[in-house]
Amino acid sequence: MAEFRDKVIDHIKAIQAMITESLESIEGSSFIRESWNREDRNGKGQVNLIQDGQVFEKGGVNYTEIELPLSRSLATYISERGKNVDQNHLSDYKLFAVGVSLVIHPRNPMAPTIHANYRYLELILNGEVKDFWFAGGTDLTPYYLDEADCISFHQSLKSACDPLSAEFYPKYKAECDEYFNIKHRGMRRGIGGIFFDDVNQWDKQDLLDLQRRCGEAFVASYPEIVRKHKDDPYTKAQRRWQKIRRGHYVEFNIAYDRGTKFGLVTPDSNIEAVLMPCPLSARWEYKYKIEPGSEEDRLVQVLRVPREWVS
Amino acid sequence: MAEFRDKVIDHIKAIQAMITESLESIEGSSFIRESWNREDRNGKGQVNLIQDGQVFEKGGVNYTEIELPLSRSLATYISERGKNVDQNHLSDYKLFAVGVSLVIHPRNPMAPTIHANYRYLELILNGEVKDFWFAGGTDLTPYYLDEADCISFHQSLKSACDPLSAEFYPKYKAECDEYFNIKHRGMRRGIGGIFFDDVNQWDKQDLLDLQRRCGEAFVASYPEIVRKHKDDPYTKAQRRWQKIRRGHYVEFNIAYDRGTKFGLVTPDSNIEAVLMPCPLSARWEYKYKIEPGSEEDRLVQVLRVPREWVS
Repeated sequence: MAEFRDKVIDHIKAIQAMITESLESIEGSSFIRESWNREDRNGKGQVNLIQDGQVFEKGGVNYTEIELPLSRSLATYISERGKNVDQNHLSDYKLFAVGVSLVIHPRNPMAPTIHANYRYLELILNGEVKDFWFAGGTDLTPYYLDEADCISFHQSLKSACDPLSAEFYPKYKAECDEYFNIKHRGMRRGIGGIFFDDVNQWDKQDLLDLQRRCGEAFVASYPEIVRKHKDDPYTKAQRRWQKIRRGHYVEFNIAYDRGTKFGLVTPDSNIEAVLMPCPLSARWEYKYKIEPGSEEDRLVQVLRVPREWVS
Repeated sequence: MAEFRDKVIDHIKAIQAMITESLESIEGSSFIRESWNREDRNGKGQVNLIQDGQVFEKGGVNYTEIELPLSRSLATYISERGKNVDQNHLSDYKLFAVGVSLVIHPRNPMAPTIHANYRYLELILNGEVKDFWFAGGTDLTPYYLDEADCISFHQSLKSACDPLSAEFYPKYKAECDEYFNIKHRGMRRGIGGIFFDDVNQWDKQDLLDLQRRCGEAFVASYPEIVRKHKDDPYTKAQRRWQKIRRGHYVEFNIAYDRGTKFGLVTPDSNIEAVLMPCPLSARWEYKYKIEPGSEEDRLVQVLRVPREWVS
């Protein structure tokens, strides 16, 4: 099984490189690359970052690899998610996780923000893999609705998932709409995508292949959407709406996102990486008024009632 | 006791009016006043608001009066805070709360943000007041440290508290430092002030008098600080630091502030009022670098290790 882990590691690093390069080709310059290694916590990673770019206002494509002792709270959490852990022998366990996680905020309000992550985890007992699972997702957050973009984005994810199982896309599309919900606003964070966790009910080679296809779908879909809109004209009012929606993004991430919340309460976590998804700028206006029938309203209708983009 | 409640209501409305007027006199124009009344929830209030002003970038001074049925979660919460509630007869109880709550974000980064609230609560059993308590606080969040301001601000609070008891200021100054802690950054939100809850161990007339003095201390101290700095010259870099610190303010409010968290999870709450403390603009930069020995660093030192400003 160590061989499989190595294969996943290579594969996830390759996804990081492929995605970063696809974004650099639009930006027209290199992202900053920062490697880190914390031997005390068996963690290492690489942050590929852009800030204040021409096309991208802020973005990061971050690789992380970590092997953690199974704390009581982590053991409770994964037990509740159906993993078999002997609570009396916690010190014999470790949790291994490897993944790439990205959030990209373009400057032009006509170009959507995107988030994606691709992860693989192993529950280790006395050096042996007792359980493994894949997790991840991709979701799109437009500021203005371009229905053709939404359809092609969802279609690319569906096409990546369908070879594994026709059930995958509809199930995890629904879970994405459920998860990325800014409950206090009665709005979704964006127009969804897919979101999955604890996935091991398929062959592990097939799941690895699914992640590769998801990465390829990202590269085939998102850069094209950004290219289409990066030079669109926009008004100050549209930029203002983008910042307001980026405020909602911050609210979701701090109030609800499991990864962010976990990072905020974990002592000694890398807070810069935890808060990397926050945009360069955000805005809160008291009672910002959305004109009925406006383009902003057209987006909000879809955020309130998620749509089926592909059948 | 209804007479006392009426007296507190008049008194808190007077604090709202006095504080709003003191801020309007600096702004040089009127705040927007919005009254609201929700008979279905026995709630009413008045929002006094400024947005995109000359001096104040955003601010609200909000009066709220509400009488709530005691839900199980609310009953558990107040029981844990030492209130005597018979859990078998919850439907016989109500909770009455009246208060004014304010957050003011000036435009000039040399002028500090301030938050204050003054509240009075009653636990009602079959129409009779079974318990009452006062709560509140005032805390200052500068972007650049002016030690004379910090000292005079804390001195004004101490002078307001001392006539009640010499113990009040040091006890609740320490609780303020403890509460307004952005744990994931290892920094306080600001330079503190006072923060108190469940206070009924003194005579209720004396406590009313304390709140009056706290309101007067606000009016004597904060407008003076803003007047002193509102026309200070500043650079783009200083404005940028202000926005970064306002990002930290958002993080505190959404991740830790009890009132905000309560508002976010309460179905049907007034989300505009809950998120009113969020600034008009905030900024997140990956690894923003604070130069050792700079003015930004001088502030951060005090945010990391709270100081005793008055003895």
